[in-house]
Amino acid sequence: MDLEKIKTTLRKFTEERDWEQFHNPKNLATALSVEASELLEIFQWSNDGGLSEIKNPKKRAEIEKEIADIFNYLVKLVDILDMDLEKTALEKIKENAEKYPIESSKGRSVKYTDFNEHKS
Amino acid sequence: MDLEKIKTTLRKFTEERDWEQFHNPKNLATALSVEASELLEIFQWSNDGGLSEIKNPKKRAEIEKEIADIFNYLVKLVDILDMDLEKTALEKIKENAEKYPIESSKGRSVKYTDFNEHKS
Amino acid sequence: MDLEKIKTTLRKFTEERDWEQFHNPKNLATALSVEASELLEIFQWSNDGGLSEIKNPKKRAEIEKEIADIFNYLVKLVDILDMDLEKTALEKIKENAEKYPIESSKGRSVKYTDFNEHKS
Amino acid sequence: MDLEKIKTTLRKFTEERDWEQFHNPKNLATALSVEASELLEIFQWSNDGGLSEIKNPKKRAEIEKEIADIFNYLVKLVDILDMDLEKTALEKIKENAEKYPIESSKGRSVKYTDFNEHKS
Repeated sequence: MDLEKIKTTLRKFTEERDWEQFHNPKNLATALSVEASELLEIFQWSNDGGLSEIKNPKKRAEIEKEIADIFNYLVKLVDILDMDLEKTALEKIKENAEKYPIESSKGRSVKYTDFNEHKS
Repeated sequence: MDLEKIKTTLRKFTEERDWEQFHNPKNLATALSVEASELLEIFQWSNDGGLSEIKNPKKRAEIEKEIADIFNYLVKLVDILDMDLEKTALEKIKENAEKYPIESSKGRSVKYTDFNEHKS
Repeated sequence: MDLEKIKTTLRKFTEERDWEQFHNPKNLATALSVEASELLEIFQWSNDGGLSEIKNPKKRAEIEKEIADIFNYLVKLVDILDMDLEKTALEKIKENAEKYPIESSKGRSVKYTDFNEHKS
Repeated sequence: MDLEKIKTTLRKFTEERDWEQFHNPKNLATALSVEASELLEIFQWSNDGGLSEIKNPKKRAEIEKEIADIFNYLVKLVDILDMDLEKTALEKIKENAEKYPIESSKGRSVKYTDFNEHKS
C-alpha cells in the first residue's frame, strides 16, 4: 500500500480548503471516533455478528466507505505525528502476543487482567 | 507499507488463540470504536487541541500505540471484507473533494448539508 | 428521581476542584462518549447479546458504575444547557413513534430511511 | 424527574414494535455509544469548547435531542438491570471525590493514576 500517496492527497485536500486550523490532534481523534461510530451504527441491531450486513451489497459498500473514512483520519494523525505505522502496528501485535499467551488465552475472550480469577 | 504482512501476522495471532469466533464483523467494529475512544480519552480535557499531549514523550508513545490498536482492528476488517483499502481511501477523498468544493469550504468547518444556510 | 440533588452535588464537586475550566460542552460531550465506550467495552466480545455479562455479579457492578458515569456527564450537560430532560426525553419518544409507525416497524430493526426498499 | 414514567413510555414503545429482540444489553450499549458520538459530532471541529454551538438556536435544539436519545437508551438499560440510578450516580460522585482529593486535583485535569508523576 502506498501510504505516502494517501498522505500527500490528504495534505493537498486539507491545504486547498484551509482546514489545517480544524485538523489539530484532538479534533482529528474526535472525528476518527465519530467515524468509528458510524461504522458501528450499521451493525448496531445485528444479532448475527454482522454477517448479514456484510453480505448485503448496499450495506457492504457503506461499510467499506466508513472504513475508508476512519483510515483517512488515522493517516492524518500518522502524518502529523510523523510516526511509523507499520512498525508500531507490528510491535503492538507482538506486545499483545506476550500479554495473551496462547495457553491461557485459547478460545477465551477474557481480558488479560482477569486471567487468574477466571482460571480458578 | 506492507499491508499483507500485517494481515498475515494478525491472522496467525488470531488463529493460534482460537479467537476467530469472537472476531466477527460486529465485534471487530465494536472493538475498533472502543480503541478509538481510548485514543480520544488522552485528549479529553485538552484545551489546546491536543498540542501539549503530542509534545509529551510519554503521552506520545501512548497515542502511537492507540493508533496502532485502531489500525490493527481496521486491517482485520479489511481482511475479512477482502476490500482494497488504498483504492477506497483515495476514492473517498475524491468524493469529499466534490462534496466540499474549495470555493464554498475554504476556511469553514461547516457540514456540506448546511452550506446554503451558512452562506446567507 | 431527584435530578436537582445530582446537579447540586456535581456542581459542588467541580467547583471545589476548580474544574469548570475543563468542563466546557465539547469536553463534556467527549468525556460522555469515552464513558459510553467503557460501558461498551464490557460487552465487546459477547456473542449472547450481553446476557452472561449482566448475570455475572462483578461485571454487573462494573456495568452499573459505567452507567452512572455516563449519567453524571449527561447531567452536567443538562445543567449547563438548563434544559428540561424529562420533557425532551418524552418528546423524543413521541417523535420516534411517528418516525417508526407500528405497522411498518413491527419486528424489524430497519432504519426509517430504508423502509421502502426493505418492504419490497 | 419522573423516571418511572419514562421507563413505562419506553417499554410501551418497544413492545408495540416487537423490538425487545433487538434491545439486549449489548445492542443497547452499542446504540447508546452511537448516540453519544452523534452528540460529539456536533462539536467535532469546534475550537472554542463548543460555546458557539450551544449559543446557536438550531444547533442547541439538535444537542438537546441527542442528549434525550442518549438518556432514553440509558433508561432502557437501567430498566433491564433494575438498578437504582440516583443512588449509583451519587455513590459514583462520592467515589470520585475520594479518588481526586481537592488538594491534589485543584485546577488540574490529570488522571488520578498520574498524580505522583505530575507532582514532581
